[in-house]
Amino acid sequence: MKNITDILIDKINEVQNPTVAGLDTRIDFLPESMTKNAKSAEDKAKAITEYNYKLIDALKGIVPSVKIQSAYYEMYAHYGVKAMNDTAAYAKKNGMVVMADVKRNDIGATAEAYAAAYLEDSDYDYITVNPYPGYDGIKPFVDAGEKNGKGIFVLARMSNPSAAELQNLDVGGEPLYMRVGSLIEKWGASVIGKHGYSAVGAVVGATNPTEAKELRKRFKTVFFLVPGYGAQGGKGADAAASFDEKGGGAIVNNSRGLIAAYKNEKYKGMTYYEAAAAAACDMREDLMRALKDNR
Amino acid sequence: MKNITDILIDKINEVQNPTVAGLDTRIDFLPESMTKNAKSAEDKAKAITEYNYKLIDALKGIVPSVKIQSAYYEMYAHYGVKAMNDTAAYAKKNGMVVMADVKRNDIGATAEAYAAAYLEDSDYDYITVNPYPGYDGIKPFVDAGEKNGKGIFVLARMSNPSAAELQNLDVGGEPLYMRVGSLIEKWGASVIGKHGYSAVGAVVGATNPTEAKELRKRFKTVFFLVPGYGAQGGKGADAAASFDEKGGGAIVNNSRGLIAAYKNEKYKGMTYYEAAAAAACDMREDLMRALKDNR
Repeated sequence: MKNITDILIDKINEVQNPTVAGLDTRIDFLPESMTKNAKSAEDKAKAITEYNYKLIDALKGIVPSVKIQSAYYEMYAHYGVKAMNDTAAYAKKNGMVVMADVKRNDIGATAEAYAAAYLEDSDYDYITVNPYPGYDGIKPFVDAGEKNGKGIFVLARMSNPSAAELQNLDVGGEPLYMRVGSLIEKWGASVIGKHGYSAVGAVVGATNPTEAKELRKRFKTVFFLVPGYGAQGGKGADAAASFDEKGGGAIVNNSRGLIAAYKNEKYKGMTYYEAAAAAACDMREDLMRALKDNR
Repeated sequence: MKNITDILIDKINEVQNPTVAGLDTRIDFLPESMTKNAKSAEDKAKAITEYNYKLIDALKGIVPSVKIQSAYYEMYAHYGVKAMNDTAAYAKKNGMVVMADVKRNDIGATAEAYAAAYLEDSDYDYITVNPYPGYDGIKPFVDAGEKNGKGIFVLARMSNPSAAELQNLDVGGEPLYMRVGSLIEKWGASVIGKHGYSAVGAVVGATNPTEAKELRKRFKTVFFLVPGYGAQGGKGADAAASFDEKGGGAIVNNSRGLIAAYKNEKYKGMTYYEAAAAAACDMREDLMRALKDNR
């Protein structure tokens, strides 16, 4: 079975764009025309699904991947979960690599159930996972991924302001996120693809370029998923810290900066999906410039 | 608004049983008669819902609370999520305190969406939360809980074998779980109820009585949710380490030891719900004896 991180890297190279579009689709991102008759949770979930479909139509060929943030779907109970899964199926059908940003974590037996939910017979290629339970909470995801050609991204150093509260605690002379990085490297040692990166990646925020550079330098087989670009304050130059010297090894997430770009003065007059495509092209340019400067 | 931990403690006192029944309802726990025609995810989710309803009918009046483990429902996509929410509604209607064991965690804006999903207009009284993102990933849950009379349990020291891998790392002379305990105490300081315990509790495994005793001694306002009793190896005496000197301050989870008790030789000949009730009475006795010995 082909390594999913090889597939992701090939798709990134194909479109020359290491960007993942974050479908953190909040109902207030939608134009009023799409929501004015959406009163119930079911209606809202359907409107969000329709919005996502058009975004996918516009973004395929420009970005290689979408990341669906579960929280914005769980808000609408089972209707929302159906919207999330329908969105995943549509993105998959359109040739995109699909990430479920669920940050699941539990003891072994329960992690097996989560792995069954997201990494067996599903349209997700990757899910995000929280490392707090340690290896027996991670192994079921790694095993299911290996069996089914899927992967995981484990939280290492997050992008939010208080992430350092636990993640930067000193543990024997290094910050906790570095220790977690070592574990991620070890957990993925058996699933390294032909491009040299494993199917067990790390989440490393663009808001902390110094930490990202350290992690990048030390863990050469770990592919990074980089949140925090755009609305959270990270710029191309910050995100570039997560890339290797050849401009590979990472993919940068942008959510509202793409999917709600039409609310930005810069893209005025465009539809939301035209604006998303235009913003994705602008982001590609910003990243490519930063990666060139980074070499 | 009444503090949810006060409500929980009052219910525990009413039935004299600090037990929460874990509805980690795996399809293979169900008798064959209930599953032989359940082929689709929708059928299976419905069978699980029916199983849960009868368990709730049998357990109410014996145990004060149920904890629903999300993973076993997410396996059945949106059908499973509906089963989970239907189960919560039924338990709530029957006067039980309802916990969603979802271990959610994310950056602030996304944690707000999760808080909206589980702590606004829902039948859940508590959810479990992972501390890895630090305070801005926790605050939305604390705020929503304060507004709506609900609470959270934050993972401190889990019950699984590899939990120590991160949670026992030394951070400045104390293990990480102790540091997390301090944070939990601080995060809940504004929501302490009349019984002296806050609406921000901690998950502390019964499989680590030494750690639990330390945590109990130091954090007098933090209520503990104690997994690991039964199938994971914890006994009444181990669970007792999480209780205060008056036999309060904690609630002990048991999942398959109750909900699949009918598969145990001891309860042979009983229906699954009769066996669950009998096992819950046996567990109450075990805990009460241990708490007496503990004083």
